[in-house]
Amino acid sequence: MKITVLKNNLKNSLDAVSRIVGENNNLPILKNVLIKSESGKINISSTDLETAIIKKVAGKSVEDGQITVPFSIFNNVINNIQSERIDLEAKKNNILIKTDSYEAKIQGMDSEDFPIIPKIEEKNEFFEIKGENLKDGIVSVMSAAQISELRPEISGVLIDIDGENIKFVATDSFRLAEKTLYGSEFTNNFERGFKIIIPLRPAQELVRVIDDKENVRIYSDGSQFMAETDDTILVTRLIDGNFPDYTQIIPKNISTDIEVSRSELMGALKLVSSFSSKNNEVIFKIIPDKKMIEVYSADSSLGENKYLIPAKISGEGVNVSFNWRFVSDGLKNIDSETVNIGLQGDVKPSVIKWPQDNSYIYIVMPIKD
Amino acid sequence: MKITVLKNNLKNSLDAVSRIVGENNNLPILKNVLIKSESGKINISSTDLETAIIKKVAGKSVEDGQITVPFSIFNNVINNIQSERIDLEAKKNNILIKTDSYEAKIQGMDSEDFPIIPKIEEKNEFFEIKGENLKDGIVSVMSAAQISELRPEISGVLIDIDGENIKFVATDSFRLAEKTLYGSEFTNNFERGFKIIIPLRPAQELVRVIDDKENVRIYSDGSQFMAETDDTILVTRLIDGNFPDYTQIIPKNISTDIEVSRSELMGALKLVSSFSSKNNEVIFKIIPDKKMIEVYSADSSLGENKYLIPAKISGEGVNVSFNWRFVSDGLKNIDSETVNIGLQGDVKPSVIKWPQDNSYIYIVMPIKD
Repeated sequence: MKITVLKNNLKNSLDAVSRIVGENNNLPILKNVLIKSESGKINISSTDLETAIIKKVAGKSVEDGQITVPFSIFNNVINNIQSERIDLEAKKNNILIKTDSYEAKIQGMDSEDFPIIPKIEEKNEFFEIKGENLKDGIVSVMSAAQISELRPEISGVLIDIDGENIKFVATDSFRLAEKTLYGSEFTNNFERGFKIIIPLRPAQELVRVIDDKENVRIYSDGSQFMAETDDTILVTRLIDGNFPDYTQIIPKNISTDIEVSRSELMGALKLVSSFSSKNNEVIFKIIPDKKMIEVYSADSSLGENKYLIPAKISGEGVNVSFNWRFVSDGLKNIDSETVNIGLQGDVKPSVIKWPQDNSYIYIVMPIKD
Repeated sequence: MKITVLKNNLKNSLDAVSRIVGENNNLPILKNVLIKSESGKINISSTDLETAIIKKVAGKSVEDGQITVPFSIFNNVINNIQSERIDLEAKKNNILIKTDSYEAKIQGMDSEDFPIIPKIEEKNEFFEIKGENLKDGIVSVMSAAQISELRPEISGVLIDIDGENIKFVATDSFRLAEKTLYGSEFTNNFERGFKIIIPLRPAQELVRVIDDKENVRIYSDGSQFMAETDDTILVTRLIDGNFPDYTQIIPKNISTDIEVSRSELMGALKLVSSFSSKNNEVIFKIIPDKKMIEVYSADSSLGENKYLIPAKISGEGVNVSFNWRFVSDGLKNIDSETVNIGLQGDVKPSVIKWPQDNSYIYIVMPIKD
């Protein structure tokens, strides 16, 4: 292998594959990346055996071939090189790096030992979606997911194509987020239904490596998930299991309906939470007469505090306790001045939504005494 | 105590005292700050028993008094308050915090239990220096100091007024930095000599809390050091001991004199150091014929690399090994395009300086095989 690349192109590609590089001491080659030039096209891959990323590198190939090198030192060298233009050459299992004033030789490993990255070859069925929409779907819900060995089925993000719409859903059983994208935001040619759970970590990586403007094709064969753009392939295994049937917990009998400034509520939670170090508990006292929410918390060794926020309230007054972080996570995914909060008393699930919009719902359980 | 302050003023003062707040579990009150209003003047103090900082808070005092509150929660609340104007009131051992929409009560402790901060009352002898000059002196040398229990005398910064000049010096015995400020940069009315060692940590705090434009008066009674401006007092104990007599190691017989681009050398060190993980060793190969320095490093498990830098060289060619971090620390304190490096072969101390300027010298020992 012999190639010439621009520093920034190589840096960007290394950055894309960086988080999947393994720390596995039993299989040291997982700490390496595979650099490959095939038919003049150059790409870099990393894998942790569950997930793999392959990223194209714009550059000139003089000679095809492949080599695998330790990510850490290679990345360190490339990031600190001053020159724009870098020559890379494989010599036995070493990689030679050359610029006008600099030369390095890094010990690599035999590329034959690099794990084979499973790809989905059957490419007739896929759905296609703009990068920014895919990322919006995942980002809107992923903070609600939790990696759980006991309950693998909630350790990821559900992607569910249901007729015209695509739903992204995640939960940790204390809160649940659901984001719906409508038919105009993607194209689907899956004939059978499409309902998969991607593990949380590759879902986060997908958000990191996909550009907003790219078109992404999504493939799945029932055990693997593959997202492909012109420059990038991310492959990961799917979570095997049934996502909980959450439709039953979506609040239907709202007894208190609140409209409140999103930024003021977020500020109040951050401030009042200073006194809720133990279980993150804050109490929302809904006072319809005063048109106020009082956000209150206390800690026996620190003290107590309260914050009054004006709000539009219809329905009954109630005191309800929440984990403030869960409420705050839900508010972060709303991009409007005000939010709607619907309560069903102090023990049943509550819902946070955009005003006049059902594309995002965030359900959160109160803390019961 | 009853005072009204602006949020940002209070925040700035809390920030100034923040790093001296103790983590001492035997004496929990050290986790507190003392807030005091006396004759209408408000200030905040913290101490770790070795060093103390007292910082003025601009504000309005309604009632004199004092209280001590846990820094962590108080700082958290003040930083997250949205309002500009904050009312603070001591009620027994609690502090009440009030804004238009927010109220908090934090449990404090009896201010009588807060340690007394030793001040130097004898104020006839002092030297006075602009904040930026004092900071320049300390910052130029402090990276060479090292906190050592075995050798307390090198665990700080020497400040030595010698006739017309003031010298700041620090060493860890592998390298030494000396910065000289000349008579025009300070005024001195100490009649006897002035030669003290301030511990590293309060020296670093001094840099953090003093503004460039302030005038600083420095007092010392032989066991304490006090720096005072209109807004700030920092008091710390001095290090008891004799700073090593370093004049003998200042290189006098330079056998190789080099002038080289500072930024290029720093870049080369950062890059080449990728392969020097064990003892930070890089080799400088000085090649007078080629007018080049080759910076080289190798690691048996990673590989090797070299960087060629053009340089003006007079004197003999030599290969000399350095800890690259030590060289890099010295280069950071030079603010010019090129630097001078003077070598005395491969085992005797080398010196790094500004070209045509002796106000800063940085001496570094080669690594001997």
